[in-house]
Amino acid sequence: MQKIKQYVEANKDRFLEELFELLRFPSVSADPQYKEGVLSTAEFVAQKLKDAGADNVEICPTAGYPIVYGEKIIDPSLPTVLVYGHYDVQPADPLELWETPPFEPTVRDGKIYARGAADDKGQFYMHVKAFEYMVRENELACNVKFMIEGEEEVGSANLGTFVKENKERLKADIILISDTSMISMETPSIETGLRGLSYVEVEVTGPNRDLHSGVYGGAVANPATILAKMIASLHDENNHITIPGFYDDVVELSAEERKALNEAPFDAEEYKKDLGVEELWGEEGFTTIERTGIRPTLEVNGIWGGYIGEGAKTVLPSKAYAKISMRLVPNQNSDRITELFKKHFESIAPKSVKVEVKPHHGGEPVVTPTDSIAYKAAEKALEETFNKKPIPTRGGGSIPIVALFEKELGIKTVLLGFGLDSDNLHSPNEKYGIENYLKGIETIPLFHKYYAELSK
Amino acid sequence: MQKIKQYVEANKDRFLEELFELLRFPSVSADPQYKEGVLSTAEFVAQKLKDAGADNVEICPTAGYPIVYGEKIIDPSLPTVLVYGHYDVQPADPLELWETPPFEPTVRDGKIYARGAADDKGQFYMHVKAFEYMVRENELACNVKFMIEGEEEVGSANLGTFVKENKERLKADIILISDTSMISMETPSIETGLRGLSYVEVEVTGPNRDLHSGVYGGAVANPATILAKMIASLHDENNHITIPGFYDDVVELSAEERKALNEAPFDAEEYKKDLGVEELWGEEGFTTIERTGIRPTLEVNGIWGGYIGEGAKTVLPSKAYAKISMRLVPNQNSDRITELFKKHFESIAPKSVKVEVKPHHGGEPVVTPTDSIAYKAAEKALEETFNKKPIPTRGGGSIPIVALFEKELGIKTVLLGFGLDSDNLHSPNEKYGIENYLKGIETIPLFHKYYAELSK
Repeated sequence: MQKIKQYVEANKDRFLEELFELLRFPSVSADPQYKEGVLSTAEFVAQKLKDAGADNVEICPTAGYPIVYGEKIIDPSLPTVLVYGHYDVQPADPLELWETPPFEPTVRDGKIYARGAADDKGQFYMHVKAFEYMVRENELACNVKFMIEGEEEVGSANLGTFVKENKERLKADIILISDTSMISMETPSIETGLRGLSYVEVEVTGPNRDLHSGVYGGAVANPATILAKMIASLHDENNHITIPGFYDDVVELSAEERKALNEAPFDAEEYKKDLGVEELWGEEGFTTIERTGIRPTLEVNGIWGGYIGEGAKTVLPSKAYAKISMRLVPNQNSDRITELFKKHFESIAPKSVKVEVKPHHGGEPVVTPTDSIAYKAAEKALEETFNKKPIPTRGGGSIPIVALFEKELGIKTVLLGFGLDSDNLHSPNEKYGIENYLKGIETIPLFHKYYAELSK
Repeated sequence: MQKIKQYVEANKDRFLEELFELLRFPSVSADPQYKEGVLSTAEFVAQKLKDAGADNVEICPTAGYPIVYGEKIIDPSLPTVLVYGHYDVQPADPLELWETPPFEPTVRDGKIYARGAADDKGQFYMHVKAFEYMVRENELACNVKFMIEGEEEVGSANLGTFVKENKERLKADIILISDTSMISMETPSIETGLRGLSYVEVEVTGPNRDLHSGVYGGAVANPATILAKMIASLHDENNHITIPGFYDDVVELSAEERKALNEAPFDAEEYKKDLGVEELWGEEGFTTIERTGIRPTLEVNGIWGGYIGEGAKTVLPSKAYAKISMRLVPNQNSDRITELFKKHFESIAPKSVKVEVKPHHGGEPVVTPTDSIAYKAAEKALEETFNKKPIPTRGGGSIPIVALFEKELGIKTVLLGFGLDSDNLHSPNEKYGIENYLKGIETIPLFHKYYAELSK
């Protein structure tokens, strides 16, 4: 333990500088105008894997953005850890809300502010640096494989094919991912479940052109009004989702499970203060921890239609749109939910408009075991770094590929996340604590060590 | 009559070329980036008034865009006609829906396509050319004054002050405005009523920043969802507006009045076909003519919030906005309705969000008499040009200054409009028929002639 601590201490400035370099690449996968930025990021990652000592490093082309692969096989008889991460990031807008430029990492009160700082550049890069340590100091306890993709924020569209076509190369005993958060630096935790996702875009068309709201107002259905009515009807007065069949496959937790879940520290006042809201809002009969962890949700991610520029324009719009995503829990199925949404949304549209529902992307919910060797190894590693036994939690986010890996490769995943919920993921001023970053680098070699030991 | 027809025939190419020049100025008053375009338009209009023979032409500064004034006083004992129009136009977006550039007038099947072609450049310029004819051919029957403003599309914010400060200069017997439409070239009509307007912008704020919809989804109110619910609640199942007190001051028409109103030709199938809708939509118990003419309405002119860019972003937005306008009928009052809306909208907001209602601009509804000399003069003039007696209609649009003029100057207005409802006012591909333009120029001198005769 001393050894890795010393190595981190001795190299931390370089570790930070390298991460800053990585964060300066605007690798926004959702927006075509950043294509170059995304591609150069892949090259940077490949180079850094080589520098750290990885063999057979390859920038693997896909129908979309490439997947960076690298490995270090020291002894076939040892267990193999497959590290997954993603080098793409969420769009940075609304830009005007950033205190410092999203692609110019800036440190304030010990936090690194930049798009991707925590999700996921800062987190996957910990593995590259921990790997560097294990190689240089001869501390490798397992074989290591890296698979860093560039399309996680847009649904990992091409990862499935890659995985199917590279089963041999990706053979491993466990998948290790740092792309989640823990409760706090004082209360380490391990996420043991992730919500699935169904993401759709809806288009409501009224008249075939924008109309003068005075000449036609009151005589023809306004698609913005109709869309509002349709969205409003998706939650009932108890904030239950009204889509028929939506809850059919939801696995209800036992009273014990719910009790355990709610033992995680949670301060509603702090939570409200942090978000600046007077009142929390959610599904009747469930706590906030449950609403964000074990219950499915439906959120409007974006809505637009008509004149949204400066000043006033008296137009009755032809079209209105919304991006809507649903978070799913075991055992809901992404495609089935998308289908249910589509059917329902089309069914509630009045004859006076046309509705189109376009599925964006999805992913399956997953629960990771807490009785596995890998979980125990993660538990021991975190306990050693934080001097406190981590508690299992349910994450509200989605990493669809966890389910994919289990299905295609038959490999389980450990979610060794070092972020915090307050890191502003997907928001302006995304940040990642320098301490989280360094502690992560410290913890990872311990996981490899204990995983190897427990696997014997 | 022959004479003006000949004059138009002899000069029509120049009349069109001059209008095209005027249409090439991007005089979008709502968008600050077009400031230069708006100001140059005022200069162009002033020059054209001089060229046509107007005296004392002046570009009168206001707190906003200037008002162009010009006059020709031939004999104080003759009646004076004050011509009002506006040289500013609506924003052109969505640009991608224009078949030809909005500020490059293009003729297709006898129609001039350009932003402002009908609203109101093409229509007020008819008066400039008719005036040119009357001056050059010594046909002036009345004194003429022009007041062409540049802020009609943003609520004529500074016209009120100008009118108050120039009562002497603006003294007239009648105000003549061409900024409305008639039923068709086969069925000339005169609008005898206009709806008022109350235009507001609402802002709904949930959390103090955009959030990750997975980490926070289901636990905090989504302002886009709440805004949708609030907007949805503004109309009941019969499409009556639910704002308490909204209908209190509405003057209900008598059965006779409604009967007369509904005698105007209206083909619902044609109407639906033109708009590309399967079904019309509106307030229960009223015909389409009534819904757009004598009933108040509430329309969403724009709505936006969250991520509206390419692809998918799983964000729970911090804010959602809407632009909402209400068309008012006699005797509703714009300020009172704005107040009622604000009070109601704030009252229906759940505690989990903050709501701000920002009034944009408004205007009062108006009804113009059909038994006046001016109306009869307009009737005779149109009948002579179109060989058919025009029928009185109620317009759905708003020209707030009509009420303003009556209040401040005590002068009534005649709405001598030559546009068509199908001219795509405020929409992409706005157009104005060349025939409408030329017939308008033909008709206007007749109005002056008959107005002078009937005034004797």
